[in-house]
Amino acid sequence: MQEVVEASIKTDQNGSVVSPKGFKADGVHCGLRYTKLDLGVIVSEVPASAAAVYTQSCFQAAPLKVTQESMAGGSRIQAVLINSGNANACTGKQGLANAYSMRRLCAEAFGLDEMQTAVSSTGVIGEPMNMEKIMEGIPLLKPDRSEEHARAFETAILTTDTCIKHTGVAFEIDGQEIRIGGAAKGSGMIHPNMGTMLGFLTSDAAIEPEYLQMALKEVTDTTFNQITVDGETSTNDMVLVMANGLAGNEPLHPGHPQWNDFKEGLGEVCKQLAMMIARDGEGATKLIEAKISGAATLEEARTAAKKVVGSSLVKTAVYGEDANWGRIIGALGHSGFSICAEKVTIWLGDLCLFSRGEPNTFSEEEAARCLQESTVMIRADLGSGDAEAVAWGCDLTYDYVKINASYRT
Amino acid sequence: MQEVVEASIKTDQNGSVVSPKGFKADGVHCGLRYTKLDLGVIVSEVPASAAAVYTQSCFQAAPLKVTQESMAGGSRIQAVLINSGNANACTGKQGLANAYSMRRLCAEAFGLDEMQTAVSSTGVIGEPMNMEKIMEGIPLLKPDRSEEHARAFETAILTTDTCIKHTGVAFEIDGQEIRIGGAAKGSGMIHPNMGTMLGFLTSDAAIEPEYLQMALKEVTDTTFNQITVDGETSTNDMVLVMANGLAGNEPLHPGHPQWNDFKEGLGEVCKQLAMMIARDGEGATKLIEAKISGAATLEEARTAAKKVVGSSLVKTAVYGEDANWGRIIGALGHSGFSICAEKVTIWLGDLCLFSRGEPNTFSEEEAARCLQESTVMIRADLGSGDAEAVAWGCDLTYDYVKINASYRT
Repeated sequence: MQEVVEASIKTDQNGSVVSPKGFKADGVHCGLRYTKLDLGVIVSEVPASAAAVYTQSCFQAAPLKVTQESMAGGSRIQAVLINSGNANACTGKQGLANAYSMRRLCAEAFGLDEMQTAVSSTGVIGEPMNMEKIMEGIPLLKPDRSEEHARAFETAILTTDTCIKHTGVAFEIDGQEIRIGGAAKGSGMIHPNMGTMLGFLTSDAAIEPEYLQMALKEVTDTTFNQITVDGETSTNDMVLVMANGLAGNEPLHPGHPQWNDFKEGLGEVCKQLAMMIARDGEGATKLIEAKISGAATLEEARTAAKKVVGSSLVKTAVYGEDANWGRIIGALGHSGFSICAEKVTIWLGDLCLFSRGEPNTFSEEEAARCLQESTVMIRADLGSGDAEAVAWGCDLTYDYVKINASYRT
Repeated sequence: MQEVVEASIKTDQNGSVVSPKGFKADGVHCGLRYTKLDLGVIVSEVPASAAAVYTQSCFQAAPLKVTQESMAGGSRIQAVLINSGNANACTGKQGLANAYSMRRLCAEAFGLDEMQTAVSSTGVIGEPMNMEKIMEGIPLLKPDRSEEHARAFETAILTTDTCIKHTGVAFEIDGQEIRIGGAAKGSGMIHPNMGTMLGFLTSDAAIEPEYLQMALKEVTDTTFNQITVDGETSTNDMVLVMANGLAGNEPLHPGHPQWNDFKEGLGEVCKQLAMMIARDGEGATKLIEAKISGAATLEEARTAAKKVVGSSLVKTAVYGEDANWGRIIGALGHSGFSICAEKVTIWLGDLCLFSRGEPNTFSEEEAARCLQESTVMIRADLGSGDAEAVAWGCDLTYDYVKINASYRT
């Protein structure tokens, strides 16, 4: 049995997709949107191991199909091209042809193999992609390793987001510094007009694609999959990670003594990006974090945590700063698991509101203080096991309705 | 094989719980709420066969436990007492004791057996029931068969509802006129403060409790269980039907030639009440009806229909009168079934928006007209089978947020 070494993982809030060695990025305005940057690219100097997770929706958009085809050919990717303003989803046969053209144009521009190129889109559903704008835009992309170009990339992938989302971590493996960086967009789990959650991660770690996929799947389940803004899933959701090996570590795999460090680092980047997306939910004023402990199974813990942050009534109560614990009970009660009320305890911050089936007397003022925080912490112990999980969401506000009532017009 | 006779079922929009022979009702103000009527009762002149369905929440409120105990003792009920203003949910041992006291007080007041008495509550969660008010209120109840008292009953069970909800049907069985009447309340599927969906139905049909339960379960699955306002389930939801046999028909059972007529009549009352609840959803301005056809299974059809009317993005688009069919696609896409985009067709009213995987060109003006109706009809054919189902919901508006952001305060 190999000895497990724990590396110290340093979070770098200024980290980005160009922090790891050998990655370049850029973002430009090509005209799919009125004035905003709308076309971005990440390029690795060398082919990178790649892994990706995709939307669970049955209606996967055309670029996802094309990217999955590229990944099927050995999972080595050297560039990913992303546009905002048009999701190229539900666009039929022409949409698929357009996604293939985007891949080909990107590969040609950067001298790559088509099968080493991925594509991703976010924006309006059901409208034909303006390929002329894409063709005009690609030559404008001048990816480099500057912070300025990284910011341009992060901006080009946004839609209704109110802020760019990037972070990074650094840690040592085999005495070599490994970096993982990431950018994300997303403001609701779905806004079929201008929507979708996207995450792009880069790393200079050496790791074979199959292990990268294994690590990505595992950390996604506790990060990106544990956020909800409005309970919906886009046709275009995708998280893609590229690892180009330039850090020079021994290739990572589950038997490597620092396998857990790599997963922890990757998980930290995913978690930070996921929390940024939840906090920037459409119309949101607050991040809600729900932690469930004492669940019988991990699935129960994860589902219950998501039910709490996904409940319209919990979300409106948090917006209204109303310590309405009955709504937390309501959300837990229909999580689909058999939860015993007599064993449940609920906290808001450190304030215990409900203890093993009986309501507690608590100070409304203290409760109001917890609800005025920019991150509202809800905790529930189900008293029936050892499993725990965390989920993140945001409050439901007038602005969510405003943003979504007339988005397309 | 018996011949199946189809009776003509007449809907009576003025019908109520006192329309069937032998049922009386009343509603009074006892002081649980400031000025609104808050205590109601239905009494049958003779013991009635009874059947009920309850919330799927793990956290069933105390009155539901007490009513289930009454039902277990032979399922003959002669009275049901309902209060609004306090849900008596998550109130621990004292709450259960209070629900038993309510049952006993009601039984004593009307000279009945406790086991022939049911109780039901709706209102704030987690607060002790003011039993003094209940004790003062019960003697004020003077149930009779007048429309005035039926209206008082229908008013006493409301919470955030903006209107009373009642209907009835009449049809002949064995040459005898049978009536079914009903009242309901509910404005969101859960508002743990002042919430809950309740339905009370009466009939003078002769039918044994086991068959009444069978019929109720069957019609509930296509009516009350197919509505959603905010995707939540209350701790107190309950639909109770009493059938006292005073119509003098041969007792109904699945072998009776008019069994389907009875189910159809019961279903019609449940459907009308369910649609009234959806239309009166908190803050709603419109009823949304989603009809799914061509599904592989009934479960797929029902789930998909509920996903469409339950989607926050569909709901806000309907509010904004925006023919955003991408959101319907989004809702169908994450219904949990494997739906093939290339087989799906979507209509808004009679307007086809998306046809077998390809977007249609349609008139935005015609679409806007469909969305301006007080009932917005969405239809999707999944192209993979014969199953179909309908679900009802409402739009998501600023007022939903307003009502729920500061309900308790």
